[in-house]
Amino acid sequence: MTEAIPGALPLGTVIGILGGGQLARMLSVAAGRLGYRTHVFDPDPAAPAAHLAAGHTVAGYADTAALRAFAARVGVVTYEFENVPAEAARLLDGLCPLRPGPRALEIAQDRLTEKAFLAEAGLRPAPHLPVESAAELEAAVRALGRPAILKSRRMGYDGKGQARIGPGDDAAAAWAAIGKVPAVLEAFVPFEREISVIVTRGLGGEIGSYPPGENTHDGGILRRTRVPAAVSPALAEEARAMAARLAEALGYVGTLGLELFVTGEGLLANEFAPRVHNSGHWTQDACAHCQFEQHIRAIAGWPLAPTAPHSAAEMENLIGHDLDRLPALAREGVSIHLYGKSEVRAGRKMGHVNRLLPGPPP
Amino acid sequence: MTEAIPGALPLGTVIGILGGGQLARMLSVAAGRLGYRTHVFDPDPAAPAAHLAAGHTVAGYADTAALRAFAARVGVVTYEFENVPAEAARLLDGLCPLRPGPRALEIAQDRLTEKAFLAEAGLRPAPHLPVESAAELEAAVRALGRPAILKSRRMGYDGKGQARIGPGDDAAAAWAAIGKVPAVLEAFVPFEREISVIVTRGLGGEIGSYPPGENTHDGGILRRTRVPAAVSPALAEEARAMAARLAEALGYVGTLGLELFVTGEGLLANEFAPRVHNSGHWTQDACAHCQFEQHIRAIAGWPLAPTAPHSAAEMENLIGHDLDRLPALAREGVSIHLYGKSEVRAGRKMGHVNRLLPGPPP
Repeated sequence: MTEAIPGALPLGTVIGILGGGQLARMLSVAAGRLGYRTHVFDPDPAAPAAHLAAGHTVAGYADTAALRAFAARVGVVTYEFENVPAEAARLLDGLCPLRPGPRALEIAQDRLTEKAFLAEAGLRPAPHLPVESAAELEAAVRALGRPAILKSRRMGYDGKGQARIGPGDDAAAAWAAIGKVPAVLEAFVPFEREISVIVTRGLGGEIGSYPPGENTHDGGILRRTRVPAAVSPALAEEARAMAARLAEALGYVGTLGLELFVTGEGLLANEFAPRVHNSGHWTQDACAHCQFEQHIRAIAGWPLAPTAPHSAAEMENLIGHDLDRLPALAREGVSIHLYGKSEVRAGRKMGHVNRLLPGPPP
Repeated sequence: MTEAIPGALPLGTVIGILGGGQLARMLSVAAGRLGYRTHVFDPDPAAPAAHLAAGHTVAGYADTAALRAFAARVGVVTYEFENVPAEAARLLDGLCPLRPGPRALEIAQDRLTEKAFLAEAGLRPAPHLPVESAAELEAAVRALGRPAILKSRRMGYDGKGQARIGPGDDAAAAWAAIGKVPAVLEAFVPFEREISVIVTRGLGGEIGSYPPGENTHDGGILRRTRVPAAVSPALAEEARAMAARLAEALGYVGTLGLELFVTGEGLLANEFAPRVHNSGHWTQDACAHCQFEQHIRAIAGWPLAPTAPHSAAEMENLIGHDLDRLPALAREGVSIHLYGKSEVRAGRKMGHVNRLLPGPPP
């Protein structure tokens, strides 16, 4: 194996990835381009990443023997989802480098901790209150007003574990809907748009971010990301600076996605994901170096790459039976990225397409 | 499995690839993006494509049992090198679709047949004569003049099996150097530049080509390809038309590379390779759809994609210890594509980089 870049993982090193979904799949391709191999750890024998990874351990995240064997065959471990069980992360962290580290996971796994951390790092979260009982929820709704959104503190993604409490809605029903688990009530933010910034922090602390993308959702699931976002250059710069501040505060190594609300009173931080992010998929076709490559560069100890896009672009997720549009999309000439999932289910992300747009790049 | 595109291979189908080198590796990535898996067949357990393929049969091309088992697990077979043994190709062709077909292989495997075919298809090869003995070589040198290049009819690539016969050179030495095998003597063509066209023909006969790239070689090995080539738009169009004519004449399915000499008397056909081609690697970063994707689209029965580049670009091969330049290249921000080969050897293609260039795309 060649230590091609001083201080970096030698070429040929196996990179372990917790989770074998589409993000691990695209990380595997990026790792391959940089001369590395990947080994994914995922309980699902049909994990999409397995088709493009050099190895696949089919085991549960509580299987410590399997985790130990996995750690023994890789040079570094990373993850593609924020709900990696804390015990698995701690165990691996003691056996080989875990990048990003367990701290980012701990913070991102709990919405309340996350918001406190964002505030501490100087990023304004939306007004919110902790909720641990029906009575606390009633009080919180009175304090924050309606509409408000109740979110479970843990295990939420793609709109799961959330309930909206509108003017006529019963707070108790919302409390039941999320399973009466520790939660956060968020004030409704009358935002103009949602944008997100994909930022990477290298092993040595170097930071690089992409211009913000503008996101639209459907049923709690990201539908489209468009760059440039329709915000002023100053606001775009501010968003990138906030993402950099967050990565810095976390002592982060790798790529993360920060979602922000553009409001009349400036930028509010919605949430961050300590991983490559769906709203950064446009970088695959509009930049010379995509978010997946940046993540691999960071965790492997490479210098980060330039992030300037060569084109404006729009990413569109293909969700469930959106796949039926494939014949038309294949003729249209958009860049198609399918995830190799054999079963089409409503709400399941099956792939995405990137369209390069006319007009100046961001 | 979803038959997402009418008449095309169902998504999830396994595509078999003969050969597990870097071309198969990059084909595997492209196949993954379109929702397919790949299984490579290569005698080398360390074949670079294996890291990014879903499966790998480690067996020789004469192992008919292994070839049969391989054919049974894939939906279509393609190849990444033109020296696939004819018997293996014939065997597979009887068991499952082989795309491109065996005819392109037969023609490309023999320089004499290839030149005859090019001429028949209306593409002018350089003046040449068959050589089967030292005496025939002497006669051919007298007829074509010096310098001339002696090339073995079979198994030649990257300058192997070739000997130059200059004004003071002994023809007998050249004959010995190539191993006294059936050969072709080619007249030296005083060309201005070498260009190549990457063309794809779809399953239904649809044809798409990229603008020609301009190639420079070093020691018989491709060093750089630059687009746009420094030729007139009319000449570029003519080159693309020639490549289309060739693909049509071959009844080809997939991507091929045609090398052409630009001379004072117009375009001469040097040779073609019935596969994705090193001089087409720039398409990975300068186009929304690269040559590898076009090949997969063709053999899987998809419509071809648009080929217009969004940028001018230069591809540079990293050969042998060029890899030592990686630290500088990693900072420069060029797109890096490494092949995962653990052993660095002189003359071995270890990877390539693509640079996007300022100026209008071709």
